[in-house]
Amino acid sequence: MKSKRNENEVVAKIERRFGLAKRNGLVLSLGDDAALWKATSGWRTVLTCDWFLEGTHFLRDKHPADAVGWKCLARAVSDIAAMGGEPRCFLLSLALPGELTGKWLDRFLGGLRRASRALGCEMAGGDTTKRDEVLINVTVIGEVRRGLEIRRSGARAGDLLFVSGTLGEADLELRQLRRTRGMAKPENAALRKHLYPRPRLELGRWIAEKRLASAMMDLSDGLSTDLSRLCAASGLGARINADSLPVSLLAKSSDAEALALHGGDDYELLFAVRRKNAGLVPRRFRGLRLTQIGEITKARKLLLTTGDKTIPLTSGGWDPFLRN
Amino acid sequence: MKSKRNENEVVAKIERRFGLAKRNGLVLSLGDDAALWKATSGWRTVLTCDWFLEGTHFLRDKHPADAVGWKCLARAVSDIAAMGGEPRCFLLSLALPGELTGKWLDRFLGGLRRASRALGCEMAGGDTTKRDEVLINVTVIGEVRRGLEIRRSGARAGDLLFVSGTLGEADLELRQLRRTRGMAKPENAALRKHLYPRPRLELGRWIAEKRLASAMMDLSDGLSTDLSRLCAASGLGARINADSLPVSLLAKSSDAEALALHGGDDYELLFAVRRKNAGLVPRRFRGLRLTQIGEITKARKLLLTTGDKTIPLTSGGWDPFLRN
Repeated sequence: MKSKRNENEVVAKIERRFGLAKRNGLVLSLGDDAALWKATSGWRTVLTCDWFLEGTHFLRDKHPADAVGWKCLARAVSDIAAMGGEPRCFLLSLALPGELTGKWLDRFLGGLRRASRALGCEMAGGDTTKRDEVLINVTVIGEVRRGLEIRRSGARAGDLLFVSGTLGEADLELRQLRRTRGMAKPENAALRKHLYPRPRLELGRWIAEKRLASAMMDLSDGLSTDLSRLCAASGLGARINADSLPVSLLAKSSDAEALALHGGDDYELLFAVRRKNAGLVPRRFRGLRLTQIGEITKARKLLLTTGDKTIPLTSGGWDPFLRN
Repeated sequence: MKSKRNENEVVAKIERRFGLAKRNGLVLSLGDDAALWKATSGWRTVLTCDWFLEGTHFLRDKHPADAVGWKCLARAVSDIAAMGGEPRCFLLSLALPGELTGKWLDRFLGGLRRASRALGCEMAGGDTTKRDEVLINVTVIGEVRRGLEIRRSGARAGDLLFVSGTLGEADLELRQLRRTRGMAKPENAALRKHLYPRPRLELGRWIAEKRLASAMMDLSDGLSTDLSRLCAASGLGARINADSLPVSLLAKSSDAEALALHGGDDYELLFAVRRKNAGLVPRRFRGLRLTQIGEITKARKLLLTTGDKTIPLTSGGWDPFLRN
């Protein structure tokens, strides 16, 4: 009788799993026309939303429902980290086929619940409907102390560019997942960064509190694509040093550089630091590597330097409108 | 070369149309990882989101892009009206085919822009991607003065039930649209309520300021379905008087009652008022009819009274999970 499960029952299932949270400023969450939330005085509200669509962002026969639940929230929260903010609550818009409202939905909600706990981001509400394919949209409401928010547009020529973690690993794991038959195992450590990305919330907050970055963003579509956006917002260019890139040691050396430059889904932070403050950036932040990969330039183009050769760096990251 | 239009160009088109608004508390809108917004002191933030999906909520060959743009925002704003709040800003998540990024997108943004102006709700940001079908999700951020918010759950037995406007018209217009060949004309006045619904913001605010309603919600899925939700939230039931229903005069008399009870998409307000305050509800509010249609009962069921006959009222409104 799965197909007879109606919208009220789907909503009830979500309510049972998440309860009616009154944390993080939430005054009223599920079960009404809208949620009510109290902003913190002296802070600014940070607003972001993200698609997570079957066939575009995940594959139903490859990605476990638990990982879908985790990742749809984690990637939206990553935008909050990129502003130096803290997540507070989220809205879940979920469309799914009737036959997935049983076990699949339970597992999806399980992963989402763990992400909600781990990231300190409470379920505030949402919208559900029926659809042939699983469609997800997540809106995250966060906060950042007034004046500490870090935009994309504050970079100046001469600023040094840093990234957190290693680059290209999530894309490498996706390739591996595509080669493997059947569903990925949620517990497969070799797929962890692709299935269960961790937004760099602590790092983002620390950078904001120290006022260390002139510009910051998260890497979701690949360094070459995202860097071009940061540069466009600042009206500047950048030069990247290929030999400095924190490539994945798991990749074949022939692939490693391309993966680091163009691979998507890393959710690492890219940030610019005034040259005089570069010494304040540690090599590691709570175990997470921080690497200087280049600098901001006055000339409005992206360049890639390898040894003493410099070539233009073209955006080769994820762009849905350029895919077939 | 439409298919070569990339994501940055789609975003640029949206930015050109909406500009970077700094009204309504917006500090930073498009072009960064997230938007920044300043809540008003002494007010609560109201959060809601709504799907608007091709094939489920609209038909690409029947609904003009301009109306799709208007309605996707208007219906989400209706949830703010239902809390007694005022809209401030919205996030647009838009997935669409490459071939619709030309004229279709222009017209869609045109309708959305007019709704944004008319409803006083500024574009704050969003997410775009490519997809075979048009998928829309809109998050609206509103505000309501602390203590004035109206929930679904405050009704008491004996409260009288009121609705605004007439019921069933939008569904009647949809039937008419389905019978007509080709695309609806945006200027067709006979389809206005279906194509260009007007959320009852002024009425909602007035009811909140007067503290007139014990419970309120907007009618999106049909009275019989939505009323059951209001009753469930309050732990009560209701009796509706069929002869009092403000039916559409355009409907055949044989259809009018069923349309008023079960027709969706009206975006009128349903509210409960303590019996002693019923005299404070005018027959018209700024030209908009207000009608007493029944009362809240202690018995947890929905009943429909016609003359001296009373029968159970079953929810027959819109439920996507019960459709084929």
